[in-house]
Amino acid sequence: MDPTARVTMSIDALLARRRALLGGNLSIAYGHPLHIVRGSMQYLWDADGRRYIDAYNNVPHVGHCHPRVVQAGQAQMAVLSTNTRYLHELILSYAERLGATLPGALKVCYFVNSGSEANELALRLARAHTGRRDLIVLEHAYHGNTTTLIDISPYKHEGQGGGGSPAWVHVAPLPDLYRGAWRRADVGAGSQYAAHVARIIDGLRASGTGLCGFLAESWPSVGGQMSLPADYVQAVYQMVRAAGGVCIADEVQTGYGRLGEHFWGFEAYGVVPDIVVLGKPIGNGHPIGAVVTTPEIASSFDNGMEFFSTFGGNTVSCAIGIAVLETVHAENLQAHAREVGRHLLGRLHELKRRHALIGEVRGAGLFLGVELVTDRQSLAPATRAAAAIANHMRDLGVLLGTDGPFHNVIKIRPPLPFTVQDADALVEALDTALAASATA
Amino acid sequence: MDPTARVTMSIDALLARRRALLGGNLSIAYGHPLHIVRGSMQYLWDADGRRYIDAYNNVPHVGHCHPRVVQAGQAQMAVLSTNTRYLHELILSYAERLGATLPGALKVCYFVNSGSEANELALRLARAHTGRRDLIVLEHAYHGNTTTLIDISPYKHEGQGGGGSPAWVHVAPLPDLYRGAWRRADVGAGSQYAAHVARIIDGLRASGTGLCGFLAESWPSVGGQMSLPADYVQAVYQMVRAAGGVCIADEVQTGYGRLGEHFWGFEAYGVVPDIVVLGKPIGNGHPIGAVVTTPEIASSFDNGMEFFSTFGGNTVSCAIGIAVLETVHAENLQAHAREVGRHLLGRLHELKRRHALIGEVRGAGLFLGVELVTDRQSLAPATRAAAAIANHMRDLGVLLGTDGPFHNVIKIRPPLPFTVQDADALVEALDTALAASATA
Repeated sequence: MDPTARVTMSIDALLARRRALLGGNLSIAYGHPLHIVRGSMQYLWDADGRRYIDAYNNVPHVGHCHPRVVQAGQAQMAVLSTNTRYLHELILSYAERLGATLPGALKVCYFVNSGSEANELALRLARAHTGRRDLIVLEHAYHGNTTTLIDISPYKHEGQGGGGSPAWVHVAPLPDLYRGAWRRADVGAGSQYAAHVARIIDGLRASGTGLCGFLAESWPSVGGQMSLPADYVQAVYQMVRAAGGVCIADEVQTGYGRLGEHFWGFEAYGVVPDIVVLGKPIGNGHPIGAVVTTPEIASSFDNGMEFFSTFGGNTVSCAIGIAVLETVHAENLQAHAREVGRHLLGRLHELKRRHALIGEVRGAGLFLGVELVTDRQSLAPATRAAAAIANHMRDLGVLLGTDGPFHNVIKIRPPLPFTVQDADALVEALDTALAASATA
Repeated sequence: MDPTARVTMSIDALLARRRALLGGNLSIAYGHPLHIVRGSMQYLWDADGRRYIDAYNNVPHVGHCHPRVVQAGQAQMAVLSTNTRYLHELILSYAERLGATLPGALKVCYFVNSGSEANELALRLARAHTGRRDLIVLEHAYHGNTTTLIDISPYKHEGQGGGGSPAWVHVAPLPDLYRGAWRRADVGAGSQYAAHVARIIDGLRASGTGLCGFLAESWPSVGGQMSLPADYVQAVYQMVRAAGGVCIADEVQTGYGRLGEHFWGFEAYGVVPDIVVLGKPIGNGHPIGAVVTTPEIASSFDNGMEFFSTFGGNTVSCAIGIAVLETVHAENLQAHAREVGRHLLGRLHELKRRHALIGEVRGAGLFLGVELVTDRQSLAPATRAAAAIANHMRDLGVLLGTDGPFHNVIKIRPPLPFTVQDADALVEALDTALAASATA
């Protein structure tokens, strides 16, 4: 099939075929679905040839179809695609380069095929190391689509179709300084949230259960594009380790320079995790996940049971993974994200001054959130307006999403080549959409 | 990095780097590890330029670096790699073509990134549909590397580092007609093994627990390259359904024409599963897994919780998946597997007449097993000889593996382009290795 051929099938015809062929709970973005046929850097094109600024997709981290990444994949797939039971230079180079971006003893790599597989493996490592199972996670968190990961993802198991938390999963409040129990104005807010984690750990100690670990996104994304208070993370890491648990940082959303100031999300808090989980951006769309840990934890996991992922660490995935990492460095994308992010954040703050619907603008680099409220005092979430604005923005040629527990946070996380001009176009469109929403 | 550049690093240097950079429980094939740098169809080349006949790797189903598959991947990765939240022709074409190969109501597809992810999803579908959890699996089975899949894989949880079966997993004996409790000579052997499953179901009924389903490889591979008695599978499917459970066929090892007579492993038994799990061969090395089920089960799963796999069903994976399926058809690889497999099976039977070490030769198409025993009466497994022979074969330029609960079964499952000449070369080398083993 020629991938450049213009497809003429209508949206309705595609939707009808999709309904017959794919599971019904696979969701589609937007009220008027997009039929996307081409991507290049921070842009996507639909079947009618219309261009969209992609401010939503964090997976194509260095840009849709980035030539360097495409060429690395094309070249390797023609030469050899095989697994880790044979020796190969590429997996070693990839592990070396990945380890070089991480602090301390985080040097032992495992490669899998998705963030879900990486979080699954991180849990196995943590359990093998501690001999325990009980885990602390954050409210509204999402860590993947397997049975065990839904068990540890309140975003899923507390939502529609969910069955709640199993007894071994302990959900701590998200330290949301905008609408949580303690807010930016509250002195010691971080400590208050940390005290909740301390109570969970005390409870486990009292019951003689013991703690396996703490698993959290460094910057919670589906929770609403949040950061965490640094003193909170520091206190939690310290008490988790004091209880014999391990600290797992899910960097699937915010690793690899997106935050601008930091290559990794956890660096914003001055902590070093015991296990780091990687996914989405590291393959620029190619299915790769990875787990990096310490030699000590890797040694506990090496208990006689072989670990094998058929595709994990295959030569093509490694060639692509190396090219993505090289591109982040070669094109200074971390510094670029910092500069463009700073500009965009400033312009979003301007919008906030003119639009009462914006309750808060937050984030860093090209990981930003705009929380919409119908009332800045009560913070009542403007859920319907958020959905309407995302749909309006799509019509205006800019792709954005919504998230957060009330689906009232506009999610901005474009491919990193996103420019100041793209940011200005986004702000202009958002200005229009906010104004339209206010008069709707 | 130029993938065609000759790598000069020594095996020892690669091993030393690997020990420092990758988890210790990632295993390496052979006593003298291979440094493979190139693959084409049924051949692999090491860094010294030596060619090996690959009779082991079933993942490169239509051949290592098959040009049609490579070109499809190369073309699509330069145009668009995106996810299922946008509409795209390719995922629909892929689902249509996949559904066309399957019988009955098996038409609704879900795409993920590995066989492990596919088995995880199959379990979620089965649980959502039945509202129950208790599962019957086969002794020695392997279904994947996540926590839940290790729970249902006796090959893992009964082995080193394993923690045994959880209460919801019920392990039925593998109906091994060579060394099991009932054998080829026993009339009604299939019924005897089925009676064991009936007792498990009776026990669940008596305890009021209820049955979620039966999950088995259609042709157990790590169990030792086995087929199952047709009357056994028919009886089990019938009683599982009578108890309200669903029947899940894990076709990761034997689907897509490998068996020669049949496109799918379950077709050999005249049954139709409720859920089919696909992995390894369907992407020819690209990370793809899939689950196909009925509209009825898909509808139960559509309970309000979105299912999303970031990479599953991405446009590049679908382009590659279509190319693999087209190649199987265009090159008549199923018929080819039947013819070459028949020839190879015949020649292996010849070897059996001359080598007392061979206890049984079995399989179909290019999914064959040669079980080695030190004594044809007691069936004492020739485990050490099997390992020595696999290593000797590697030195003779033919890649094979060993498997089965006693690691005494020579596993033959080459890429399907494997020819009669390759088969003859394999038999000649095996003749030499068997003779050397007998005099060792």
